[in-house]
Amino acid sequence: MRCNFMELVVAASMLAGVIVRATDPLPSWNDGAAKQSIIGFVERVTKDGSPDFVPVPERIAVFDNDGTLWTEQPMYFQLAFVLDRVKALVPWNVEWKDKEPFKAILAGDFKSALSGGEQAIAELLAATHAKITTEEFEKVVREWSSTAKHPRFNRLYTECVYQPMLELLAYLRANGFKTYIVSGGGIDFMRPWTERVYGIPPEQVIGSSGKTKFEMRGGKPVLVKMPSIGSVDDKEGKPVNIHLHIGRRPVMAFGNSDGDLQMLQWTAAGAGPRFCMIVHHTDAEREWAYDRESVIGRLDNALDEAKMRGWSIVDMKADWRVIYPFQK
Amino acid sequence: MRCNFMELVVAASMLAGVIVRATDPLPSWNDGAAKQSIIGFVERVTKDGSPDFVPVPERIAVFDNDGTLWTEQPMYFQLAFVLDRVKALVPWNVEWKDKEPFKAILAGDFKSALSGGEQAIAELLAATHAKITTEEFEKVVREWSSTAKHPRFNRLYTECVYQPMLELLAYLRANGFKTYIVSGGGIDFMRPWTERVYGIPPEQVIGSSGKTKFEMRGGKPVLVKMPSIGSVDDKEGKPVNIHLHIGRRPVMAFGNSDGDLQMLQWTAAGAGPRFCMIVHHTDAEREWAYDRESVIGRLDNALDEAKMRGWSIVDMKADWRVIYPFQK
Repeated sequence: MRCNFMELVVAASMLAGVIVRATDPLPSWNDGAAKQSIIGFVERVTKDGSPDFVPVPERIAVFDNDGTLWTEQPMYFQLAFVLDRVKALVPWNVEWKDKEPFKAILAGDFKSALSGGEQAIAELLAATHAKITTEEFEKVVREWSSTAKHPRFNRLYTECVYQPMLELLAYLRANGFKTYIVSGGGIDFMRPWTERVYGIPPEQVIGSSGKTKFEMRGGKPVLVKMPSIGSVDDKEGKPVNIHLHIGRRPVMAFGNSDGDLQMLQWTAAGAGPRFCMIVHHTDAEREWAYDRESVIGRLDNALDEAKMRGWSIVDMKADWRVIYPFQK
Repeated sequence: MRCNFMELVVAASMLAGVIVRATDPLPSWNDGAAKQSIIGFVERVTKDGSPDFVPVPERIAVFDNDGTLWTEQPMYFQLAFVLDRVKALVPWNVEWKDKEPFKAILAGDFKSALSGGEQAIAELLAATHAKITTEEFEKVVREWSSTAKHPRFNRLYTECVYQPMLELLAYLRANGFKTYIVSGGGIDFMRPWTERVYGIPPEQVIGSSGKTKFEMRGGKPVLVKMPSIGSVDDKEGKPVNIHLHIGRRPVMAFGNSDGDLQMLQWTAAGAGPRFCMIVHHTDAEREWAYDRESVIGRLDNALDEAKMRGWSIVDMKADWRVIYPFQK
C-alpha cells in the first residue's frame, strides 16, 4: 500500500489517539459516575469545534484543600502545626505554662484549648503565625512539613494526600487547565509545599491570610507577619478571593464541605459549561466517614445542593481504588 | 562535502542561532546601556548551566502600569474614567450638580474637585466604582476602554501604551518569564483590557482594590463592589501584595516613580540575580518630561536609589526609538 503524506499524518494521529486513550489518566478512580463525569466534561470542553469548547486561558479549576486534596481528620493539619509550634516556642515563652489556651494545649487537651473560641484561636495564631518575617515563617513550615507525621498513619502529613486527586490535578493540567487551591487554610502555611506535593505553584494558592508589614531591617527590606487577620478564605470569602486573586470565574470547582458551597455556587452560575464536584467522605475503614454532624469538614447544605443541582459527588469508598500514594 | 547526521544537526543549530540572533527582540529600543542591560540579564539567567541560571517557575517579572507600561499624563487614565463615569451617572444623581466634589468635576475643574483630599477621592470612588456587581463594572470598563480617547493624541487610552514595553513583555515571556502588573491602579479597572493590550491575563494583574461582598440575587450569586478600600497597592503595599498574590519574590521589576521604590527594593534584596529598572520620562516632545517635582508619577527618592544601586534607568528620549504603537 502506498500512502500520500496527508494519509500518513491522519493514520499517525489516529494511532496516537488510540495510545492516549488506552492509558487511563485516572487509574486510582474506579469506573463509575464520578470518574465518567470528569472525563466526559474535560473531553467536551477541550474538543476544538465543540459548542462547549473553552479556550485554554479560561480553563481555571479551583480546589479546596482540607478534606478535598488531603485528609482533615482527626484535626486540620494546620492545627497540628499550631500545637507543634506552641511546644517548640515554650522555652522562649515560659509564661505559657500557666496561661490559657497554651496551658491546655501543652497538656494535650485540645478541646479545652479551643473552648476559648475566636479569642483563643486568635491568640494561638498570633503566637505561632506572626511577629516573624515571611521568610522565617516559610522556613519553619518547610521544616515542619518535611518532619511532622500524621498520628494514625505515621506518615508525613504531606503524604496524607489523595492519590486520585493527584491524578486529577495532573489530568486537568495536561488538558490546559490552570489548577488553583482555594482553601480556608493559611496561604503562607500551604505555599512552601504545594508545588512539590501537588504541582501547584505558590501563585496559584489562595488561602486565609494575616496582614503583613513592609519594614527595613538593617538596610534590608522584610515583610513581617502581623497578628491581625487579612482575609478568612472560607464560605463567602472563597468567591471573594477568587475574584481578587484570579479575576475570572472558574470552569471547574472541587470541595468537600459547607465551607465550599459559595465557591461551587459561584462557579456553577457562570455562562457556558461548568463542573462542580463534592468529595463525600464515606470510607471509615481506609480514611474517615463523616458529613452532616461533623465538627470538622461538616457537609450538610452543600450535599443537599449538590444533589438538587446534579453536581458530581465522589463516594470515596466506592469511587476511589486507592486513597493515599503510600497505599499504591 | 559529505556530512554525517550529527554534523548536520550542529550546522542546523548554528544556523538557527544566527537567525534568532539576527532578529532583534526589542526593535523599538535604541542600542544603549538600558537595552543591553535587559538582554544581558535575560541571557545570563536563562542559559542552562550558567551560575546565574534561574529555573522557569522562578522567572517572575513585575511591572508597574501608570507611567511604566502606559502614559500617566496629563492625569492617571483611571481618573479620566472616574470623570467620564460621573458625567454618565448625573442623570441618575441630579443632586451631584450642586454637590462637591461632583459639581467641580462637571464644571471641568479637576483641581478643585480633588482639593477635598482623601474624602473627596473616596466619595468619587464610591460613586463610580461601587454599588454594582463585578460583572456590571467589567462591562462598564470594557465599554470605556474601547471608546474613551486621550485628549492629546486623540487615540484610545489603551493605544497610549509604550511600544518598547510591549516588546519587552513579549521578549520576557518568550524566555519563560511570567509577566505581572503591580499597579496603584484599580485591579478591576485593569483586568478587562490587560490581556488584549499587554498579553497579561487577569490572574497576573495586581492592583488597588475595594472590598467585595458575595450575595444571592434572585437565586443567582453575585459579587457586589463595596465603597470601602480593600488594599492600596502603592509604595509598601506593592511588596505586601506581591507576597499575597504571587508568594515568591520577583526576579525582575520595572517602575517609574517613588511609588515603585519598595517593590524594586524588595525585588533587589532577593538572593541570586535580580534586575531592577526605572523608566525616566525625559521626552517632552514625544511624551512628557517629569521627575522630582511632578505631582503625578513623582520620581525622586527612587531615582537617587537607582543611581546609588546601579539599577538600570531608561532615558525615554534617548533609549526609545518609538513611544507608541501608532507611531511605528
